[in-house]
Amino acid sequence: MADTRDTGLALDPKYDRDGLITAVASDAQTGELLMLAHMNADAFAATVETGVAHFWSRSRSKLWRKGEESGNELRVVDMRIDCDQDALWLIVQPAGPACHTGRRSCFYRRVTKDGLSWIDEGAGPA
Amino acid sequence: MADTRDTGLALDPKYDRDGLITAVASDAQTGELLMLAHMNADAFAATVETGVAHFWSRSRSKLWRKGEESGNELRVVDMRIDCDQDALWLIVQPAGPACHTGRRSCFYRRVTKDGLSWIDEGAGPA
Repeated sequence: MADTRDTGLALDPKYDRDGLITAVASDAQTGELLMLAHMNADAFAATVETGVAHFWSRSRSKLWRKGEESGNELRVVDMRIDCDQDALWLIVQPAGPACHTGRRSCFYRRVTKDGLSWIDEGAGPA
Repeated sequence: MADTRDTGLALDPKYDRDGLITAVASDAQTGELLMLAHMNADAFAATVETGVAHFWSRSRSKLWRKGEESGNELRVVDMRIDCDQDALWLIVQPAGPACHTGRRSCFYRRVTKDGLSWIDEGAGPA
């Protein structure tokens, strides 16, 4: 069921009922998924304009330039939008740990039938 | 602001008000992001149990084993959950194109200040 959002080159982000679009960032060097967050239209525009990832903080209800406090910015090397334009993929160069826990990536735990485990030694309790 | 969801090995997925958690799948070989979709608790359990990606189809309101019609399954090589347990990262071996448009990945268009463009020749109109 392809529609014009799928098939063309007209930018038409599909924001959800909260005015947000999901964005994931992966490391341009390693391919590792770093984080998943959300953008409103302002965050999306600021990201495209500045080349640095901006998000909408749902917990603080404010526009948030990733790294504005920690310094751990995400410089956007490449940015993609998916078929139905409701998800963004940022390929980034991180200035430091992407996760608020101080880890390189937010995805530091593995899920298996036996539950969770740390992906590596360095991913243990911070 | 780390809480127990962040710091421990207790699996406690944070489903949203629709009972869903966001899941992204990337190619185990190439690292390319293939798709973003959603899981309810049943889809999550089925994915962990079978090692094949299951999602909740929001458009059809049903549990959906990716590839059940197309054959384009995603075999889960590794699975991660993020710090606040509201996002999943599936590292997968795709049996075929992941996108419903027939493309390898749903992320076939680049976003720049100048708008959208195809990421490569093969990504043009299907």
